[in-house]
Parts: sequence; C-alpha cells; structure tokens
Amino acid sequence: MVLPHLISIVGGGPGDPELLTVKALKRLKEADVILYDALLGEEILELANPASLKKYVGKIYNDGQNQCERQEAINNEILHWASAGKRLVRLKTGDPMVFARGAEEIRFCRANNINFEIIPGISAGFAASALFSIPLTERGKSNMILFYTANRENGGFYDVEPLVQVIQSGSPVMVYMGLNNLPKLAEKLAGKGIDSATSIQILSNISQARQKSWSTNIGEVVGFLKENKPETHSVIIIGKNAQQI
Amino acid sequence: MVLPHLISIVGGGPGDPELLTVKALKRLKEADVILYDALLGEEILELANPASLKKYVGKIYNDGQNQCERQEAINNEILHWASAGKRLVRLKTGDPMVFARGAEEIRFCRANNINFEIIPGISAGFAASALFSIPLTERGKSNMILFYTANRENGGFYDVEPLVQVIQSGSPVMVYMGLNNLPKLAEKLAGKGIDSATSIQILSNISQARQKSWSTNIGEVVGFLKENKPETHSVIIIGKNAQQI
Repeated sequence: MVLPHLISIVGGGPGDPELLTVKALKRLKEADVILYDALLGEEILELANPASLKKYVGKIYNDGQNQCERQEAINNEILHWASAGKRLVRLKTGDPMVFARGAEEIRFCRANNINFEIIPGISAGFAASALFSIPLTERGKSNMILFYTANRENGGFYDVEPLVQVIQSGSPVMVYMGLNNLPKLAEKLAGKGIDSATSIQILSNISQARQKSWSTNIGEVVGFLKENKPETHSVIIIGKNAQQI
Repeated sequence: MVLPHLISIVGGGPGDPELLTVKALKRLKEADVILYDALLGEEILELANPASLKKYVGKIYNDGQNQCERQEAINNEILHWASAGKRLVRLKTGDPMVFARGAEEIRFCRANNINFEIIPGISAGFAASALFSIPLTERGKSNMILFYTANRENGGFYDVEPLVQVIQSGSPVMVYMGLNNLPKLAEKLAGKGIDSATSIQILSNISQARQKSWSTNIGEVVGFLKENKPETHSVIIIGKNAQQI
C-alpha cells in the first residue's frame, strides 16, 4: 500500500524568500510538519503555516555529526510523519537533486511506499550567476557549465580532469562546498596546466542581505585566502570568462 | 545617466506557472511591457498584469530567422521601453544565464546605462531531474553535473572530451537543444569509448501537462529515434546513473 499523504521534497532556493517557487511557498503554507536544513533563513520559515511543527535537521560544516546516522534520523522522521498522515515538507537548501542527498530520501520513500513529490529549487550557483551578473554560457566564449563539489565524504578529492577540460574550453566550473579545499584545488588545476590568470569568483550568502563577492585567480588564491576570509557558505566560479559584467 | 526604470531579465522556469519564483511572478504582475520567448506557456502570461503589452520575441528551431538581427531587435525594444520609462520584463525560458543569451542582453544594458536586475529561474534540466526522479548527484555514484549544448550556432560541434570525462566518472551530462544532434553525439561518445549501455533519458515539455519521458542508451539511440519522435523541446540526460528512481 502506498501511504496516502504527500511528502514534498522541496528546493528552498538560495535563501531569499522571493526566490522560492510559487509551488514551494504553497506547500510551506499547507504543511503540518517541516524538516529543514541549515542555511535557510528564518524569513522562509516565517512564511510557512504558523501552526506547523518546524524541526531543524541540518548539518553544519565540521559539526562532528555522523552523516549516515543523521540521514537515518531524517528518514525515520519522514516515515513517522507519513504514517501519521501528516503533510510533510522536507525543505532543502537550493535544489533537492544537486549536492543535497535528494536521491537518498527518494530511494527511502520508494522503499517504504511513501507517496512523494519533488519540487525543484533555484540552486545557489545559478542564483550567484544572476545576482552578480556572471554569465555562465555565452556565444563564442562558453558552451557548457560544470557543477562540482570539492568536498568528498572521505576527505579525499575527486578527479579534476573534467574540470581541466571544461576550463580549457573557456567554460566555467561551479564549485559547491569547496572553500576549504580551494587552495588544494587551485594547486591541482595549475599542475594540470590551467593558466594562473584564470579567474576565481567567490560568492557568499547569495541572495541574502549579507551577500558578498570576492575576486581572485588561480595563481593568487592561496595568498588571497590568507588575507581574506570569505564565509564557508560560498559558491565558487572558476573560468577565464567567469567575470562580472 | 542611468535610466531610472528597472528592466527585469526574468527566468520563467520550465513552463509550469507554479515553478515561477515568487519574485518573477511579482514582476510579471507589475509589468508595463513583457517581451517573451518561445516555449513559455500562455498560462504564465495570463498571470501577468492584464494591462501590459505582451510581445513575442522568441525563436523556434529552424525558423530561418537571422539570430543576430533577432537579438538586435530585442535590444532595440529594451532600449525603447527603458527610455520611455516603462517597467519591462524580459521573460526567458528556464534561467537567463543558461543557454539563453542573458549575457548579451546584460552587456547591452550596461553599454546603454540601463538599470537592470536578473531574476534566476528553474532551468529545464533541474526541473527534469526533480519531476522524473532522476538523481544528478549521489554519494559514491556521481559528484558532478555537466550542462552542455550540442547545438552550435555555426552548425558544428563542440569538443566532446569533457563529456567523456564526466560520463566515465559516473556523473551525468545534461544536454540542451540536442535532440537533432543526438545520433551524432552518441556516435562521437561511443567512438571515445563510452559504454554502449550508458543510459540516455529524453524528457520533453517538462513540468507541463504533456510532459513525457523516453529511455534509451548510447548503443541503441539511432534505431530508437527512427521508431520514436520525441519533441524537439527536450532535455537529454546521459550517464550510467541517470536512471529514474
């Protein structure tokens, strides 16, 4: 039997409540229970059904939580509220399918016959591009975009070869959760022949009042990060054409 | 002097009016003039200010229009309405910064001192992933996403080497405007050693009532497209883990 009540796995966007989709906002207003991640502003929760139960289930970089246990606890919550017949919103930062473990929660819902929907959200990288006027694709300059994370669960590093190919073609690489690994990433890219003048844009707290941008390049980023302290919650765009217009 | 009235370059999302952002909807309701692209449903325009002037400026595949002239005509419209002090919404399909010539319109606004804002939208690829439950990133399987277009303005083909790298790592490639070139693209990928069993998902009219999915793979796609006719307005996801959950 498929449990009748709908679980909505919702992309909350980059932070500005006005960048929620109309559908996401509707679900928040109808929700009985909201399980929400870190980095989503209070402002978004204030738009939700005032009678709803709002429960924080997020992680913060280096908070020492075991991520498998954390995901299991979230899954248990989903099952609990679905079984109780409650309208649950699982509110995620950005888009649920992009570096957000959406797939794991969907597999859990399928395995437990929980009826769900997924509502896409504005991913931080696209919001950064729009709000800071940094083009991602442009005729004759850039014809692809690579979304990448430099934050591997075991602390290691993913292969950078695809990044090298994309950057050398003139197109941008959008790095999520990469600030702590940025010096190492820049070093690897330089080692593969990426020009030291290739620009790096660091964009933090995107779409929020305290949003901020920093600009450096592959050759200078190590020194730059000794002088400047962008917030961990940043998106990084690397590419020779990744320049603010 | 910067012209005072705001031009909003707005991402209209994949088609479903509920996937507009709250901010995009607000701008549509306030607009004096709306310049809109192809593929955005009538439903979205019906939500806009009823008194607004709504002008179609889109292109359709193979419509024979000269694209430079078309862009120049749009730029002239932007300048005209900005100078007249009207609130203009330049409504684009998906996200303005992703295969949408947003950069060209921004450069034009900067060059003409036209005050503008960019409102991001849900790009069709992310919507496809959410609405068809096809994960893009997943721990241990996929740690990047490549957005690519196989539709080069001169009819040629962009380098597929980055695609090969990404697909071989287990991550997906999201192809925009690629249906007509898909057989050639699959052939090129197979020639570079991509496994013929690598799955291809074709997703058309995403988020609209007539949305539909087709599933094939690198080895079989040519025969598949002889038997099946997905609509040109499709997003294609290629990758061994690009499977509906």
